[in-house]
Amino acid sequence: MFELLKTDPSSKARLGRVTTTRGVIDTPVFMPVGTQGSVKALDPRELQEMGTKIILGNTYHLNIRPGLDIIRDAGGLHRFINWPLPILTDSGGFQVFSLASIRKIKAHGVEFRSHLDGNLLFLGPKEAMEIQRVLGSDIAMVFDDCPPHTATVREVKEAIERTVRWAGECREQPRAPGQSVFGIIQGGSHAEQREECAKAIVALNFDGYAIGGVSVGEPETEMMKAVEHTVPFLPENQPRYAMGLGTPAQLVELVARGIDMFDCVLPTRVARNGTAFTAKGTVSIKAGFNKSDWRPIEEGCECFACRNFSRAYLRHLLNVEEILGLRMLSVHNSHMFLKVMADMRAHIAAGTFAEFRREFVGNYIPSERVLATRGQTKVRGADE
Amino acid sequence: MFELLKTDPSSKARLGRVTTTRGVIDTPVFMPVGTQGSVKALDPRELQEMGTKIILGNTYHLNIRPGLDIIRDAGGLHRFINWPLPILTDSGGFQVFSLASIRKIKAHGVEFRSHLDGNLLFLGPKEAMEIQRVLGSDIAMVFDDCPPHTATVREVKEAIERTVRWAGECREQPRAPGQSVFGIIQGGSHAEQREECAKAIVALNFDGYAIGGVSVGEPETEMMKAVEHTVPFLPENQPRYAMGLGTPAQLVELVARGIDMFDCVLPTRVARNGTAFTAKGTVSIKAGFNKSDWRPIEEGCECFACRNFSRAYLRHLLNVEEILGLRMLSVHNSHMFLKVMADMRAHIAAGTFAEFRREFVGNYIPSERVLATRGQTKVRGADE
Repeated sequence: MFELLKTDPSSKARLGRVTTTRGVIDTPVFMPVGTQGSVKALDPRELQEMGTKIILGNTYHLNIRPGLDIIRDAGGLHRFINWPLPILTDSGGFQVFSLASIRKIKAHGVEFRSHLDGNLLFLGPKEAMEIQRVLGSDIAMVFDDCPPHTATVREVKEAIERTVRWAGECREQPRAPGQSVFGIIQGGSHAEQREECAKAIVALNFDGYAIGGVSVGEPETEMMKAVEHTVPFLPENQPRYAMGLGTPAQLVELVARGIDMFDCVLPTRVARNGTAFTAKGTVSIKAGFNKSDWRPIEEGCECFACRNFSRAYLRHLLNVEEILGLRMLSVHNSHMFLKVMADMRAHIAAGTFAEFRREFVGNYIPSERVLATRGQTKVRGADE
Repeated sequence: MFELLKTDPSSKARLGRVTTTRGVIDTPVFMPVGTQGSVKALDPRELQEMGTKIILGNTYHLNIRPGLDIIRDAGGLHRFINWPLPILTDSGGFQVFSLASIRKIKAHGVEFRSHLDGNLLFLGPKEAMEIQRVLGSDIAMVFDDCPPHTATVREVKEAIERTVRWAGECREQPRAPGQSVFGIIQGGSHAEQREECAKAIVALNFDGYAIGGVSVGEPETEMMKAVEHTVPFLPENQPRYAMGLGTPAQLVELVARGIDMFDCVLPTRVARNGTAFTAKGTVSIKAGFNKSDWRPIEEGCECFACRNFSRAYLRHLLNVEEILGLRMLSVHNSHMFLKVMADMRAHIAAGTFAEFRREFVGNYIPSERVLATRGQTKVRGADE
């Protein structure tokens, strides 16, 4: 499934290729997030035009609405949403442990109340894999226990025990035709727990490995540690996926640490706040200083928004709450994340990744507000 | 500016062509409404793909936000919003008399408070024409007094007196290069007042003539009367525009009464309520009965939404409040209105308009709720 094409001599950055029945994905890759069966504000044509090769869907959300019967009747998620390229589905573990109100953690899953209507639901390895089988995703994720970043070592150890046991149960479930399954490593930012969990999960022999328990509100240093403590125990010849990350500069640093796959709600979520990502960091397009700025969001950017509209016009649209404003910022931000990945692939291939990394991270000024937004899933609820 | 190509033998329907410096417009034509510089939820590419040849912009709204300085600085409205084809601008008369809180009607205009922030503003013939000159629209409208449909005959007579006097003042104002100016006929549903106003406005010699004082909450019979009482007094060789109308079946009936140009917020407004227009009338896509309906909104429709998505998926999107749902219904509804106009043009050309009219109007079941929505501008406020 995964072909390792090149490794950067200056870092752990890798150039690779994931092959699925629905298409080939060059890595490092960014996967736009289509939580409820739509990458927020974008249509499939726009996604393909900006170079999207794989999107993410959410088991937890799709299972609640529209519900599995509808998607089964449609012939799977791809046909339901009219997306012909690969889809990776989350298992719902993250949402159960962050969005839902948990009633009881049991041996084979979690009893919880829907964040939406309070309905009593149950999700465990068997259920999560069955849902993903019906969704027909190209890559399914195991159902894991994802503790908050404030968890004690003892709680993290318990989460690992469950995560490993549930991963084993997921491994045994039937799959959709051509469906790969990735294991998830938990362990917080603790070296020992990450190593223990990684070894146990890798021993189960999955098609790829994800680092979970990041993007749960932890500071950036802890997030980087979680990745650094995990990567050494993952096989070279399989894809590595850091879940729910990150800002553009973080993506570069995570690629440098050996990660191949990413998903994050930041591009579309921040767009809906009127903020755009650029190579120099985020900029509030909604802000008054753009009111007669006739430049595009970012000079040289080739996205649909930058080819067609000025900051001044986009600022006006956001100001008067026209949907086109949110749409165009979502286009630009998603394109920007995909472009950073394409640039990294080109630089790893050309042997110039070290230079690119230094320059990109040096120019990118992170915004505290945006960093805080990354962990917002826990407080914002059902949004994404 | 206007070429009358053919007149239908069975009715007053006309095939024509309006020529502007920015493009040729085949009539009868529907003009999507871009009140605040954006046809709600749509981008310029989508508009052109569905065959839009001219859009509408609003003097009242654009003058408040972003304000004239910004649009002047952009080089006009076309460049500000990146729309290369013709734009018709409303004069603001309708909005001043419906949205704003009027403080005082004076000899040369109206002092009113902005619906948005209560700022004291003044709009009259001079101001409305100056704003439209800066906007640089291809077709500007005169500033008129648009009374509600509940106005007494005396009030209607006063409105006509002002409308005619102000039209004369508008006639004398400088114009943008290549800009045409249309007069507006008021007079409610009264035959005598319509005739009087039409004759006086036509005597001022404009480039085209609009029927105003419709789409102000009146019943359909009164609206039709207003048109029937006006059309006989309009010159054959100039375009006729019925302002703010209507449902698809009304458009067909109005074309049959000799109207060439239309604008209406219904396609996009109704879309945002989760309702789609079809040849058989409106249908609530949001309704539960669509939850596993795998047909497109309308069989045989060639719009982007119908080519790509099922009712079931669109229903899900609307249900979970995904922006793509509103977008796709806006695409379908706008496309549907443009298609009805294209069909009418083809049938007038082929000499089969009578048959088309009978069949279309016979099949179209009007919805009371949608008819009520048409007059909603007066109660909904700043929306469109």
